[in-house]
Amino acid sequence: MISITLPDGSVRQYPEPLTVLEVAKDISEGLARNVLSAQFNQQTVEASTLIEEDGDLRLFTWNDDEGKTAFWHSSAHILAQTILALYPEAKLTIGPAIENGFYYDVDFGDHSFSEKDLAAVEKQFLAFAREKFAFKMRRSSKADALAFYQKENNPFKVELIENLEDGTITFCDHADFTDLCRGGHIPHTGFVKAVKLLNVAGAYWRGDETKPQLTRIYGISFPKQKELTEYLALLEEAKKRDHRKLGKELDLFTFSQKVGQGLPLWLPKGTALRERLENFLKEAQKKAGYEQVISPHIGNKELYMTSGHYEKYGADSFQPIETPAEGEEFLLKPMNCPHHCEIYNARQWSYKDLPKRYAEFGTVYRYEQSGELHGLTRVRGFTQDDAHIFCMPTQLDEEFKKVIDLVLYVFGSLGFENFTAQVSLRDPEKPEKYIGSDENWDLAETAIINAAKEKNLNYVIEYGEAAFYGPKLDFMVKDALGRKWQLGTIQVDYNLPERFDLSYKGSDNELHRPVMIHRAPFGSLERFVAILLEHTGGNFPLWLMPEQVILLCVSEKYEKYAQKVLNQLENNEIRALIDNRNETIGKKIREAQLNKYPYMLIVGEKEAAENTVAVRSRAEGDTGTLTVETFIQKLSAEVEASSAKFEV
Amino acid sequence: MISITLPDGSVRQYPEPLTVLEVAKDISEGLARNVLSAQFNQQTVEASTLIEEDGDLRLFTWNDDEGKTAFWHSSAHILAQTILALYPEAKLTIGPAIENGFYYDVDFGDHSFSEKDLAAVEKQFLAFAREKFAFKMRRSSKADALAFYQKENNPFKVELIENLEDGTITFCDHADFTDLCRGGHIPHTGFVKAVKLLNVAGAYWRGDETKPQLTRIYGISFPKQKELTEYLALLEEAKKRDHRKLGKELDLFTFSQKVGQGLPLWLPKGTALRERLENFLKEAQKKAGYEQVISPHIGNKELYMTSGHYEKYGADSFQPIETPAEGEEFLLKPMNCPHHCEIYNARQWSYKDLPKRYAEFGTVYRYEQSGELHGLTRVRGFTQDDAHIFCMPTQLDEEFKKVIDLVLYVFGSLGFENFTAQVSLRDPEKPEKYIGSDENWDLAETAIINAAKEKNLNYVIEYGEAAFYGPKLDFMVKDALGRKWQLGTIQVDYNLPERFDLSYKGSDNELHRPVMIHRAPFGSLERFVAILLEHTGGNFPLWLMPEQVILLCVSEKYEKYAQKVLNQLENNEIRALIDNRNETIGKKIREAQLNKYPYMLIVGEKEAAENTVAVRSRAEGDTGTLTVETFIQKLSAEVEASSAKFEV
Repeated sequence: MISITLPDGSVRQYPEPLTVLEVAKDISEGLARNVLSAQFNQQTVEASTLIEEDGDLRLFTWNDDEGKTAFWHSSAHILAQTILALYPEAKLTIGPAIENGFYYDVDFGDHSFSEKDLAAVEKQFLAFAREKFAFKMRRSSKADALAFYQKENNPFKVELIENLEDGTITFCDHADFTDLCRGGHIPHTGFVKAVKLLNVAGAYWRGDETKPQLTRIYGISFPKQKELTEYLALLEEAKKRDHRKLGKELDLFTFSQKVGQGLPLWLPKGTALRERLENFLKEAQKKAGYEQVISPHIGNKELYMTSGHYEKYGADSFQPIETPAEGEEFLLKPMNCPHHCEIYNARQWSYKDLPKRYAEFGTVYRYEQSGELHGLTRVRGFTQDDAHIFCMPTQLDEEFKKVIDLVLYVFGSLGFENFTAQVSLRDPEKPEKYIGSDENWDLAETAIINAAKEKNLNYVIEYGEAAFYGPKLDFMVKDALGRKWQLGTIQVDYNLPERFDLSYKGSDNELHRPVMIHRAPFGSLERFVAILLEHTGGNFPLWLMPEQVILLCVSEKYEKYAQKVLNQLENNEIRALIDNRNETIGKKIREAQLNKYPYMLIVGEKEAAENTVAVRSRAEGDTGTLTVETFIQKLSAEVEASSAKFEV
Repeated sequence: MISITLPDGSVRQYPEPLTVLEVAKDISEGLARNVLSAQFNQQTVEASTLIEEDGDLRLFTWNDDEGKTAFWHSSAHILAQTILALYPEAKLTIGPAIENGFYYDVDFGDHSFSEKDLAAVEKQFLAFAREKFAFKMRRSSKADALAFYQKENNPFKVELIENLEDGTITFCDHADFTDLCRGGHIPHTGFVKAVKLLNVAGAYWRGDETKPQLTRIYGISFPKQKELTEYLALLEEAKKRDHRKLGKELDLFTFSQKVGQGLPLWLPKGTALRERLENFLKEAQKKAGYEQVISPHIGNKELYMTSGHYEKYGADSFQPIETPAEGEEFLLKPMNCPHHCEIYNARQWSYKDLPKRYAEFGTVYRYEQSGELHGLTRVRGFTQDDAHIFCMPTQLDEEFKKVIDLVLYVFGSLGFENFTAQVSLRDPEKPEKYIGSDENWDLAETAIINAAKEKNLNYVIEYGEAAFYGPKLDFMVKDALGRKWQLGTIQVDYNLPERFDLSYKGSDNELHRPVMIHRAPFGSLERFVAILLEHTGGNFPLWLMPEQVILLCVSEKYEKYAQKVLNQLENNEIRALIDNRNETIGKKIREAQLNKYPYMLIVGEKEAAENTVAVRSRAEGDTGTLTVETFIQKLSAEVEASSAKFEV
């Protein structure tokens, strides 16, 4: 008898060997129709793989990341088949599945393959796919494998095989096509109903620029045409919402080669936006008992020797800053925590004073290679909405819950409705990896899990994902385009309190070690603004908009009246500006629309005479003429409704 | 005939040579009684100096810095005379006048001179002074001078004389004492009516630590005993108000050896104070048309090559920051201007867009030797309330006036009533020293002078004090202790617009070069807070106090009521906190007084029952019991009265 254990713990027994697909069928016909790939005893297998021994079986469909990977990996095979069919002289190299889709690197020899060739490739690709060719794995000796590609005159595959051990080499066959392959396919090509080859790029063989240049063809494929259509629409929308594009259009930030790559310069409108976000959080943090502090952007090297950051990151980061005095070295701060530890250390605290919660919008600098830089999401200098809570181990529970409240308030106020949490705990089998007593770890892990439960978070527990210095909770947010971002980390730390010899006097009059929580709801203001831009497409919640209203003068004659209305708006804490340029009202409206002003107030002769404004909402267009007072009331109510107050 | 021109331009003629004192007598007996020293044709002379040719004469009394210098220089002679009289084995070295008083460096040989010896020295000093010994200059040959000190067995004076040119050597005699001296004395010792020897310190001969250690005796002297008494009281008050002491007492800031010398860590209360100052200025700047920007704290070395800062300051400052990438170097920013030039350069401006006024609370880092560091007044990292105005040359006039308005608003709001201005212009005889056209300089200088006049500033013009890149206006503020501080600079700059190739499109559709104004009313927030602390002794204007009210619970029972009052206060934008510790009310009041809370509200049984508070003002003590509403009204009015609104 063969015993097969499924992920839900149920066990199925079969008298003789059977394929993965047969097991699926035994579970349900519907499942069998959707199974794309599987794992048996933690090894990737195919639907056609014969199961001959006891073990754990996981079946994957399109809804699983593993299912998508098999789907795209198999699509790369079809692409390769198509290339060889259309370009018999082409040499195949490698072609993996990636996060979204797949690619194949090809040596087209003298042919210069370009984007205009893609349509024909797609057509042939789909023709092959429709044939429902089964994918079949086949073992090969090293000698046979080499002989095959030598005959094909393909030096790339030969080089790959030369580095493989005899006995481990497999091929995958479908139709009359074969490719060197480790496995992990969908049952047959017919599952692939839609494909889009996205673009063509250059790539060096093995990423080495001294080696031949290849042509990389990127593609993505789906089980349904509708899914492809949706994906392409999303891609189009993502392009429109690219924060680098929007940042430029909305005059939020810029970069300068002279100042340096990855070092954003915040323009006036971006600065106002950032300050509004900072003030929003500062206000909530004040209510939650945080105290703002300010620390310098450099620290003596000794500070980072104490914290351990120098040993860990020193070589790969911005290098030490020397001074005219001998032996004196400073470092740009990569983190605010060592500074906050020294602020805590400025006096002896008692248990009655705890928790101390130090918050700082602290700008830190971390070296990234220039190729890794990307707009505001990957920069070399960024401002963390950082805070460090110093508390007694017994206060962790309460503090964790409070931090979660704050994070949820931030998400709610900024329109992130869709998020999950990950709780990272110790690897229970490797206790020696972690600093701090078991007792404290138990306290902290229990505190996190209890807090996550009590706050009704949708969370998963990952064992072994904790840092060596403490467990943590991360939030994963899904944006309006369905992309996932890690936002908001809460991290327990037993390490820095040791290294900085932090203490508090307990009720027993003895010195004790406090525990530290690092937390940052936004993470980095730069990255957060980027995500918010792409999430909202620049249409921020009304309370956040740097300018909520633009007054458009029909002609310069009405500027005085516009100024009067502006003063009224400003007296009611509405942020507004006037466009009194000598341009047509049509042009002014178009530009205001592009600049995302939520409300345009058009003022001309009639409005000036009647003390009214003609209101145009960005979302709804013309909404009629109102008295200034009525408009102010209406807008104030709307601003109020767009923002929740943080309650402790 | 000898013609003598006085500073007011009047000319006096005398038939034959006469002494400076005789000229003074000829002007007025009163003046003659008070003349301490003089300059004739820009050379320092004595009251007894014989005038034998035509020239310009300036007479100095105690009210002139030059008069004080002569007074203290002469006092150093009396101190030296006294030392030799009491310690015949002592060797004199040098003893100059300094900003406040004078010192003398003495080699006491085996005798260990200490502060307890000072009283006896003071007593003998005054005894000598009362003898009214006249100071008389005498020429000496180098050989005679050397012989004299060789006989005295004084290697220090011998070394000094060896470095002098024969023919230039003079001595000053008074009583039976003589000293090597260049001149500049008061007429006789009798002018010195009061002396205080302040302290004794070690000092190396010629400041070189490989050379013998000497004993430095610091002293100060006055023409009247009353002035000494006042000075000592001021010194005592200055000690109490030392911002380093107050900063600690009020929990405003701290330093950490690990973070690094000269790098302040702002504690919560200090941060709140700083933010209040920042918001105060931001609000006024917003009204004045400034736009806030944010720039990174580092810049590529190229940025500072372009600006010229690297060439000028590179070697003496924080050294370049290297990265793992080859050839890439960054610098900690010593100034914000290059970054703001790049922000300006992010797009092409038209004359209609100007002026652009970019403001940033920009933290900059400048290396200072550790010996130069002092609390918050001399640090290695500080935050400037920086702004750069980019305008057309024809807008300078208007912009200058607006900046002066802002500076005066800052001074007025923070209780600096006593200030003067200095206008620094070109040296008209060295036009080659300056960058920029004569026409532009004329425009800028006229703009500054007109603005100073129109704003009724008490100003002086200093020719030749302008920077090479433009004229400027500096404010000198006198604090409550009579000390002068330079606060608030407005500086025109023709250099950076050239170096960064800044331009705007004029109404002629051609590109033109804008002119730049640097300005910082506070200068540095760190230094400003230090000055403000010493000026106010920590009793800031009510609007600025981080906490305006402290609620003192008579016992823990009334905490709930205190919390209710606190909420009422906070709803009325009054900053308050509760002291609910289990301490006596007397102790709580004493500590609150020390912590400078302007108002203490005592809440106990009676107050909780009647919804009142027992009000204690820090300045006036008990002021009776009020309802919470009445107190709020009263305090709000007082806060309002303590702060002016900035009006454009």
